[in-house]
Amino acid sequence: MATPVYIENFESWQEDFSYFDSISVRFSETDAFGHVNNTVAFIYFEQARINYFYSLGLMDEWVKGPYMIVTGDLQCDYRRQVAFGDKLQVGVKIASIGRTSIDVHYLVKNQKNQICMTGRGRIVQVEKKTGASTPWQNELLGMLEKA
Amino acid sequence: MATPVYIENFESWQEDFSYFDSISVRFSETDAFGHVNNTVAFIYFEQARINYFYSLGLMDEWVKGPYMIVTGDLQCDYRRQVAFGDKLQVGVKIASIGRTSIDVHYLVKNQKNQICMTGRGRIVQVEKKTGASTPWQNELLGMLEKA
Amino acid sequence: MATPVYIENFESWQEDFSYFDSISVRFSETDAFGHVNNTVAFIYFEQARINYFYSLGLMDEWVKGPYMIVTGDLQCDYRRQVAFGDKLQVGVKIASIGRTSIDVHYLVKNQKNQICMTGRGRIVQVEKKTGASTPWQNELLGMLEKA
Amino acid sequence: MATPVYIENFESWQEDFSYFDSISVRFSETDAFGHVNNTVAFIYFEQARINYFYSLGLMDEWVKGPYMIVTGDLQCDYRRQVAFGDKLQVGVKIASIGRTSIDVHYLVKNQKNQICMTGRGRIVQVEKKTGASTPWQNELLGMLEKA
Repeated sequence: MATPVYIENFESWQEDFSYFDSISVRFSETDAFGHVNNTVAFIYFEQARINYFYSLGLMDEWVKGPYMIVTGDLQCDYRRQVAFGDKLQVGVKIASIGRTSIDVHYLVKNQKNQICMTGRGRIVQVEKKTGASTPWQNELLGMLEKA
Repeated sequence: MATPVYIENFESWQEDFSYFDSISVRFSETDAFGHVNNTVAFIYFEQARINYFYSLGLMDEWVKGPYMIVTGDLQCDYRRQVAFGDKLQVGVKIASIGRTSIDVHYLVKNQKNQICMTGRGRIVQVEKKTGASTPWQNELLGMLEKA
Repeated sequence: MATPVYIENFESWQEDFSYFDSISVRFSETDAFGHVNNTVAFIYFEQARINYFYSLGLMDEWVKGPYMIVTGDLQCDYRRQVAFGDKLQVGVKIASIGRTSIDVHYLVKNQKNQICMTGRGRIVQVEKKTGASTPWQNELLGMLEKA
Repeated sequence: MATPVYIENFESWQEDFSYFDSISVRFSETDAFGHVNNTVAFIYFEQARINYFYSLGLMDEWVKGPYMIVTGDLQCDYRRQVAFGDKLQVGVKIASIGRTSIDVHYLVKNQKNQICMTGRGRIVQVEKKTGASTPWQNELLGMLEKA
């Protein structure tokens, strides 16, 4: 399988993940082909991303403050089927920081340490009232850079 | 199959439905057993119920006013498997009106007019601020009784 | 709140659960009312039920053998809203054993030990080839009675 | 908003869609932010893609024959929030044909003809028995080229 364009060197890309979220496959997430439906990958990405942001103290800012985050784009590359009963580790990392957005990368491994999916997506900070994209405040920028 | 306790006479119960909502099965709603996952029945009930309430002009009251509705309980009896590609008709009716709640009944038929599921659930009106159950206002009661 | 008809004495009913499954709420399981969508309760029931059956060694029989199980009916009583971030314990028990079916009960508690939902449903053993309901084999009956 | 890399010229790209599938938003597909959860975009893509393949007579080949299709990758660009009650038109087209795969593009518009999402993904033909990617048979290739 070709390496996705958002991954320069797979080895170093993979080693760069330090946060992993454990996710159990729900039976209702399988489909009639017998495996986890491909749309569910993005549910796992979201779950791990939110827990990662909580662990960094970022979510509190967005829940309470005048700004929140929205998803600009999302993508997933499928390498191996996930079955009911699989115990997944979903890695999340901030791959790059823009003026008003961050690029978040994802790595999903099963209990045998086999890579099932990789992915990425852009998260944009917007003003709650207007929906306009908004530059990171200095404090937030510091938290993102330390992540 | 035994008739559920909420249905006295199946023939007249079935004839009493006049509102039906058309629902297309999504592939992601199937599971590894090859049919629509049993938890999805309640998604279809909800969809048809909300559209029914909209058609009666009830939803506007709850979206704008000081009261809203919550689900007290829900149940479903499964009679026939639903497959991807099935075109469903989901019937909804108000079976009885209480002081602060209504009992809503459901009937799901496929494109061959075969009954796939029946169900019911209690919907309770509550005050948005406190969550306390609240008697129907006279105007709403009139709308419910005409339904 | 009135006690559901499937619970005779709430105290002893609740004490009778010995198997609990831990479930984390996914953000995608919330809805626009701000809490977990009511249809998701049945996803949690299913997840805990399957894990319970695995822990009893029952699932292997149904995956490999000539018989499988289907859901006859399902119901849920809602007592308290579940929010994103809640860590749930979902209790499952076999409440009674019939000739071809079992009645399974459910209890959902949050991290503060507050009861969020109770429920029940009938699981029926059927022949895979014909779909006909089938009496429990002696070995299975023994496993169910010990559960 | 920047044009995604898979779209050369937005005007001509958009005009090139001739198949559209109507999709109604389910209430359970919203999340606590008040709009349709971003993971649901891929459910809509899948639904429209499968219906498109059925309309072309392709699905029958994959359901009955020795080959089937799997998702290689998927991506979505979000341009506008989707709300409960929105009536969506989901466009699907085959953007390019490879030796063993096709590139499928997506366009989601609401009832006001506003563009909500665009997307693409690679679909790969594999042998059911081995999972190995498999060149398109001549007959299928003809059907894909006419699409």
